[in-house]
Amino acid sequence: MASSKKKLQGLVAATITPMTEHGEINFSVIGQYVDYLVEEQGVKNVFVNGTTGEGLSLSVSERRRVAEEWVTKGRNKLDQVVIHVGALSLKESQELAQHAAEIGADGIAVIAPFFLKPWNKDVLINFLKEVAAAAPALPFYYYHIPAVTGIKIRAEEVLDGIQEKIPTFQGLKFSDTDLLDFGQCVDQNRQRQFAFLFGVDEQLLSALVMGATGAVGSTYNYLGKKTNQMLEAFEKKDFSSALNHQFCIQRFINFVVKLGFGVSQTKAIMTLVSGIPMGPPRLPLQKASREFTDNAEAKLKSLDFLSFNDLKEGNLEACS
Amino acid sequence: MASSKKKLQGLVAATITPMTEHGEINFSVIGQYVDYLVEEQGVKNVFVNGTTGEGLSLSVSERRRVAEEWVTKGRNKLDQVVIHVGALSLKESQELAQHAAEIGADGIAVIAPFFLKPWNKDVLINFLKEVAAAAPALPFYYYHIPAVTGIKIRAEEVLDGIQEKIPTFQGLKFSDTDLLDFGQCVDQNRQRQFAFLFGVDEQLLSALVMGATGAVGSTYNYLGKKTNQMLEAFEKKDFSSALNHQFCIQRFINFVVKLGFGVSQTKAIMTLVSGIPMGPPRLPLQKASREFTDNAEAKLKSLDFLSFNDLKEGNLEACS
Amino acid sequence: MASSKKKLQGLVAATITPMTEHGEINFSVIGQYVDYLVEEQGVKNVFVNGTTGEGLSLSVSERRRVAEEWVTKGRNKLDQVVIHVGALSLKESQELAQHAAEIGADGIAVIAPFFLKPWNKDVLINFLKEVAAAAPALPFYYYHIPAVTGIKIRAEEVLDGIQEKIPTFQGLKFSDTDLLDFGQCVDQNRQRQFAFLFGVDEQLLSALVMGATGAVGSTYNYLGKKTNQMLEAFEKKDFSSALNHQFCIQRFINFVVKLGFGVSQTKAIMTLVSGIPMGPPRLPLQKASREFTDNAEAKLKSLDFLSFNDLKEGNLEACS
Amino acid sequence: MASSKKKLQGLVAATITPMTEHGEINFSVIGQYVDYLVEEQGVKNVFVNGTTGEGLSLSVSERRRVAEEWVTKGRNKLDQVVIHVGALSLKESQELAQHAAEIGADGIAVIAPFFLKPWNKDVLINFLKEVAAAAPALPFYYYHIPAVTGIKIRAEEVLDGIQEKIPTFQGLKFSDTDLLDFGQCVDQNRQRQFAFLFGVDEQLLSALVMGATGAVGSTYNYLGKKTNQMLEAFEKKDFSSALNHQFCIQRFINFVVKLGFGVSQTKAIMTLVSGIPMGPPRLPLQKASREFTDNAEAKLKSLDFLSFNDLKEGNLEACS
Repeated sequence: MASSKKKLQGLVAATITPMTEHGEINFSVIGQYVDYLVEEQGVKNVFVNGTTGEGLSLSVSERRRVAEEWVTKGRNKLDQVVIHVGALSLKESQELAQHAAEIGADGIAVIAPFFLKPWNKDVLINFLKEVAAAAPALPFYYYHIPAVTGIKIRAEEVLDGIQEKIPTFQGLKFSDTDLLDFGQCVDQNRQRQFAFLFGVDEQLLSALVMGATGAVGSTYNYLGKKTNQMLEAFEKKDFSSALNHQFCIQRFINFVVKLGFGVSQTKAIMTLVSGIPMGPPRLPLQKASREFTDNAEAKLKSLDFLSFNDLKEGNLEACS
Repeated sequence: MASSKKKLQGLVAATITPMTEHGEINFSVIGQYVDYLVEEQGVKNVFVNGTTGEGLSLSVSERRRVAEEWVTKGRNKLDQVVIHVGALSLKESQELAQHAAEIGADGIAVIAPFFLKPWNKDVLINFLKEVAAAAPALPFYYYHIPAVTGIKIRAEEVLDGIQEKIPTFQGLKFSDTDLLDFGQCVDQNRQRQFAFLFGVDEQLLSALVMGATGAVGSTYNYLGKKTNQMLEAFEKKDFSSALNHQFCIQRFINFVVKLGFGVSQTKAIMTLVSGIPMGPPRLPLQKASREFTDNAEAKLKSLDFLSFNDLKEGNLEACS
Repeated sequence: MASSKKKLQGLVAATITPMTEHGEINFSVIGQYVDYLVEEQGVKNVFVNGTTGEGLSLSVSERRRVAEEWVTKGRNKLDQVVIHVGALSLKESQELAQHAAEIGADGIAVIAPFFLKPWNKDVLINFLKEVAAAAPALPFYYYHIPAVTGIKIRAEEVLDGIQEKIPTFQGLKFSDTDLLDFGQCVDQNRQRQFAFLFGVDEQLLSALVMGATGAVGSTYNYLGKKTNQMLEAFEKKDFSSALNHQFCIQRFINFVVKLGFGVSQTKAIMTLVSGIPMGPPRLPLQKASREFTDNAEAKLKSLDFLSFNDLKEGNLEACS
Repeated sequence: MASSKKKLQGLVAATITPMTEHGEINFSVIGQYVDYLVEEQGVKNVFVNGTTGEGLSLSVSERRRVAEEWVTKGRNKLDQVVIHVGALSLKESQELAQHAAEIGADGIAVIAPFFLKPWNKDVLINFLKEVAAAAPALPFYYYHIPAVTGIKIRAEEVLDGIQEKIPTFQGLKFSDTDLLDFGQCVDQNRQRQFAFLFGVDEQLLSALVMGATGAVGSTYNYLGKKTNQMLEAFEKKDFSSALNHQFCIQRFINFVVKLGFGVSQTKAIMTLVSGIPMGPPRLPLQKASREFTDNAEAKLKSLDFLSFNDLKEGNLEACS
């Protein structure tokens, strides 16, 4: 399959699921959303129905329709559309994997089940294997996020010999700050063409130096352009510029983290920056407060993240 | 509705979902299972599709069919069949709640969503309220299990004025050892006819003295008779007997906890004690090891938990 | 040694270390403090230099002087003065243990070291054994508080055969809510005359029913009288009164817990209730806020915990 | 004071405290240890009495003597000798700080107290300030290690305006993987000449790219030479070599982490590599197992970490 030949690299936006004020999915803006990512942010890969997309807050039928919409609207515009098909139920995860294959997605990603938990790496791999088998032609990505799953199994151990068990394995979304584990994933699999995608946006630079081949995150929806500047500087070995860009991004994330930063806030920020209405989240989340939105907007302006004119007079915080 | 009038009390078995060797649900033994609980264990209430039942490992359609089977087979035999309808997706939880009402279940229970988490008690109550509203005639129970959900909101705060928000609220399954929180749930709601069901089997006695009106747990599938003896002793204020029974139960639980005790092991133990084949669990769990089963069987025998002849010569561990 | 013959039982006050406004120890009020505990609270045992006493915030020489003062002032008034000699440094712990013996204390207690941590129960017991050996004639108590030490070793495993390793072992201060572990400590050591002292004041009743022989806590400084009423009701098998007393105590603790409750707040409350100036805590703690003190005082009044007239007209919260 | 003028940079070895088989400090080898660090590892700065040095397992008098020995033996050989003077007791910490000044140490470092914990950054800074005031002429370093202290206060918040409160503040030992926090410490203090020392050896490269000016760690005792090669490559912007060195170091750390890696194991490894007898640790630690030592030795050989001939035929693991 063609898609399995091209390697997923660079920035991957963890997509937001736009909703109406009543918490129903607002499919109508996804086409516009695709264009915005490509044209304004320079981001051509998406990770659909993940944490940022409230994937596990959607019903299985909703997840199918969201996936379809992204594949359809992304055709000839996006490089890759990866669908997160992880679920607590193996059967539902398999159904979603099969569906992703049917609609022509470019890959599937799976989080470790986190209610009843696998005891060891072998059981975890068996679970992942059963999901992968439902889409035997699709590239498979393991979504490692131990702080959320509460599972202590190291990614490096999951990757050990994984191709013998999961032939479609193509890479890892690593959402943790343990760069020993991440580094050893890279080091021990150098011969293989895996994608090592880092998932902690605020410290991406620290993973690039450790061998990351790309990144999946929510901030690439609205800071993709800025982050691409960092990637370019890093490629050119211009580390001081790369660090300036990273710090600039950190200033924003550090600011919102202190206010309380999650999916609700990401929806509010994306609405501000892109002008595309992302709407409120669905329960169990609640809409970001007005206070948050006002503070975030002021910060975005002070950092020139709304205009992206990187040098504005009298704007001391703006990043050179 | 009749069911809303009778209070849920005494022991409630958290039902196991029997499976075939291939991990498909084995509906055929549920009738026999009902009879066993009623006749051999003296347990007449069940909590279906909870943690022990691998509820979140089943697809929504499987959860519907399991619920139907328990309601059908339990008719005129069981006092109450409570269906756990909690899910990460509000829509799926609502679908399951409505279905529980349609099939004539006696109540629904809901765990707090634990992937994206409610920030505060109001958001949590809003989520629960939306689920309850899908089954407006069914008694509603909140399933409090902070160690699993990672949510720090105290049950006592959730219960504060909950009837104004959720008129069908009838009680609490409290699966935690914080008996300040549990005690204050009881103390602050004395005027109301709530069920205060404790969910930590190995220390039920400590909750009875704090006002528990019943208990929901996995061990009542096979230690229901023994636990009922403890409840009777407690009712008669025969505390030394009650404590003997509790210690006896603890000896078994303490033993298996050290071997690694979870749903897989519960299925193996129930198969041993009841003779009804519960089968293996579904991924992400794996079948209990042979070593576990052998050790558990030996312990059950030494404690007379297989025969329930409580006084056997030369059996020092047996409980008087 | 005489003291080793009498068993430590009933309530044990975890003593506060009175300080001046400048954070120096105020030895002058300890005599008055002893009289208050005995005469007003009916508490005749003390646990000195523990968590409540800021024991680990004091220098070794200060700990020695505080211990001396309690032993001296308690003579012929208190039943037992137990000195907490736990420290991160084995040598300092041994020095304090030897000193406790020299001054004629009635026992020593030791917390597991929690910076560098023992890997398993054997290493932990070796550490405790080395401390106990420095005071070979003094009763030894193990202070189990896993939430603080971060050590997962269960108390039941530490007690397994402990008398062969620590002949002076006399009991356990169990500061946790895992009543399976606590219950098995009691159940497995029934033949031995150990003291099983519970350390979670707000749920003491749940441990009494599980076999606790006494309690060590900070609230017994000012709620000793009320708690003794609970113990008496429990002895008389008057469980409904015992529960009323427990709930009454919980109402206060539940109230202050929500405001933020620790050693600083305990000092403020004790000053309010006893009239004896306990002063501020030493860094890294800071004095309880005025707001806390005002709120706590109002609550104490509404519960009649200042006057202890247990039935006051128009005082709905007051405990009957 | 001269020492306050020279900035602490490069590698700082967290020193081991050599002990006899009976757990007494073996002062006799410290001179040899100094020479080894300087001559064999190219490490000219030391951090004494920290975690690796079992500082909190020593008595205050032992800590004083160990500090004196390092200052004496390091004179004219080491660039800087920083003494960790953190303790649970402010008074003991102040005594150690004053002593460090008296013996002519080059700086002091302090961990946040972690038994009774500061509630907020202001209380923490007050505590640090009181310690710093006891050595008004010595550079002061804050030792940030939240995983050990359990304190959630971010380093970036502690550093905010710290020079107004602690004029002698000179830098940070940051032992955590949160590189948003670390990065913002660097970014927000660029004008100041602080030392930003990273404390997670296995991922030092990820911090160098984020602005680390040096590193403090236990592995620099025996992997200092190798790590210096990484620092040099990084300086020369030869990132692929730097990453090769980092991966090589990670292979060893990853290997021992899986076996169980702590201070005991560090002592065993250092004895193997340096030939200087470090002895066993003191309780509550126990000597590394023979099995660990054998496995570690084999791994060190396969990585050429014993010989440091970086290219050996037929040694596939050896790092180029």
